[in-house]
Amino acid sequence: MTAQEFKANVPLRWSDQDINGHVNNAKIVTAIEESRIFWLNKEAATKGLTSFNVPKVVVSLEVQYKRPVSGVDDLTIYICTEKIGNTSFTLRYRGEQDGKVAFIARTVLVTLDRETQRPRRLDEKEIAYLRSYTAE
Amino acid sequence: MTAQEFKANVPLRWSDQDINGHVNNAKIVTAIEESRIFWLNKEAATKGLTSFNVPKVVVSLEVQYKRPVSGVDDLTIYICTEKIGNTSFTLRYRGEQDGKVAFIARTVLVTLDRETQRPRRLDEKEIAYLRSYTAE
Amino acid sequence: MTAQEFKANVPLRWSDQDINGHVNNAKIVTAIEESRIFWLNKEAATKGLTSFNVPKVVVSLEVQYKRPVSGVDDLTIYICTEKIGNTSFTLRYRGEQDGKVAFIARTVLVTLDRETQRPRRLDEKEIAYLRSYTAE
Amino acid sequence: MTAQEFKANVPLRWSDQDINGHVNNAKIVTAIEESRIFWLNKEAATKGLTSFNVPKVVVSLEVQYKRPVSGVDDLTIYICTEKIGNTSFTLRYRGEQDGKVAFIARTVLVTLDRETQRPRRLDEKEIAYLRSYTAE
Repeated sequence: MTAQEFKANVPLRWSDQDINGHVNNAKIVTAIEESRIFWLNKEAATKGLTSFNVPKVVVSLEVQYKRPVSGVDDLTIYICTEKIGNTSFTLRYRGEQDGKVAFIARTVLVTLDRETQRPRRLDEKEIAYLRSYTAE
Repeated sequence: MTAQEFKANVPLRWSDQDINGHVNNAKIVTAIEESRIFWLNKEAATKGLTSFNVPKVVVSLEVQYKRPVSGVDDLTIYICTEKIGNTSFTLRYRGEQDGKVAFIARTVLVTLDRETQRPRRLDEKEIAYLRSYTAE
Repeated sequence: MTAQEFKANVPLRWSDQDINGHVNNAKIVTAIEESRIFWLNKEAATKGLTSFNVPKVVVSLEVQYKRPVSGVDDLTIYICTEKIGNTSFTLRYRGEQDGKVAFIARTVLVTLDRETQRPRRLDEKEIAYLRSYTAE
Repeated sequence: MTAQEFKANVPLRWSDQDINGHVNNAKIVTAIEESRIFWLNKEAATKGLTSFNVPKVVVSLEVQYKRPVSGVDDLTIYICTEKIGNTSFTLRYRGEQDGKVAFIARTVLVTLDRETQRPRRLDEKEIAYLRSYTAE
C-alpha cells in the first residue's frame, strides 16, 4: 500500500447485487469508473486541475476478481498511476472490503479534446497530477 | 472468423448510452454477460445441456475497446472457447457493429456447485459443448 | 385489448433480476422507457415521422405492479395514447408475460425543442401519430 | 417539512446520467429504492428493528418529476409514512437538490414472509417504527 494512492470510498447500492447475492461483475466496473471520477474530476478540481473534466475513453480494461463483493459492506478503491503516455495513461485499482482485496483492475484511458472528440496530448499539469499518485 | 463461434445478437437499450453519447464501458460488460447467458444457459439447453444453468463466477475479465459502440446500431457478439481447465474455462468475445470490430474481450469463469457454492469440476458433456465452439 | 395499441417486445436481461429473483421495479421502468423508444423513435421513423426523436422529459410516472416479472420469460408491452395536450401527452402501458398482465403504467411526457431545451408544441403529424394509437 | 421525516443522502453516480445530461428517470426510481433501504434496512436496524430486512414487493409507484436531477449535485430524499395497512404501507418521498424539490414520489410496499414469500402482517414494532415517521 503506497502513500501515493488515492483512496475512494465507493457507495454500493442494494441493486448492485445480482440474483446470486453478490455485487455483479459489471457493477464492479461501474464502481471502478466512479472511483476514477472521484479522483480525476472531483479531487483534481479541488487542487485547481479541471482539465480532466472532459470526455475520456476507456480503451482497455482488466479486472481480476479475487473474492465476491458484498452489497452490504463498504467498498474502498485505491487508485494509482501505472504508466503515462502522450495521450493515454494506465491506472491500477485495488478494491477492498473488510481489509481484504476483493479485486485488482487496470484501465487505459485516453483523454479527448472536447471540441474535436479526438485524442489530445496530456498537458504538464495533468502529468504532474498523475505522477503524484504513481506507485513506486 | 471461425465456423465454431457462437453468434449472439445482443439488444442494446437507449439507456446503455452515457452522457458522452456512446454505450458506456460497463454496459458493454453487461452485453458480454448477456451474450454468454444466451450461449451457456439458453442455447446449451436447446441441445439438452442444462447443467451450465448454475451460478458461475467471473474470476477474470479483459476488454479491449476498439471503437465506440453506438446505442442505435445492432450489436453482434461472437463467442468461442479459448481454454478449458478442470473447474474453469476461458471464453473470447468479439463484438461487432456494422461489420466492424468494436471490442475484443476475454473472461475466465468458474462453475459453482449449486449447493455448496464451491467450484466444481466441469463434466464431460460440458467440456464437449465448450470444445465444439473452440477457436482453431 | 384495442387494435390501436402498439406492441413492443422488450428483451429482458439476466442482470435485470435482483437478489429476490425477479425483475427489479426500477428495471421495469427502464423496460417501459425502452418500449416507448421503440414506438416514438423507431416505429414512428419507419412511417416518416422523425420529429419525436428529440429529448423528451418524463414529468410523471405511475406503475401498478400486478405480479412479479420473471427475468426468463418474454415481456410484451402494449402502448396506447391516453391524452394529448399542447406540449405534453399521456401514454398507458400494459406489460404482459405468458398472456397475464404483469403491470400497468402511465407516463406524462413533454417534448423539448432540441435547441432551447424548452417544451415545444406538438405538431399536427405528431398528434395524428399519437391519435392513431388512442385507446377507445 | 415535518420533524418526523427520515433524511437520506443518496449518492448519485456519473453513469446515472443519460445522454440528455440529466439523471435518468429510472435511475431516480433506483435512488428512491436506495433511500428506502437506508431507512428500513439500515436505520431501523440501528434501533433494534431488523424484521424489515426481508424481501419487500413494490406494488405501486408514482413519481412526479418537478425538475431535472443533476448528476453532479447531492441528492437528499426525505421519507415519511403516509398510510399503514395490514400487510402494506405507503411511503412518500421528496427529493431535493440545492434546497429545491426535484421530485415527489409514493410507493406502496408489501412485506413478505421470508419462507413462504407471501404477504405477511406488519407486527407492532414495525408499525410503531413506521408511525414515528408519519407526516402530520
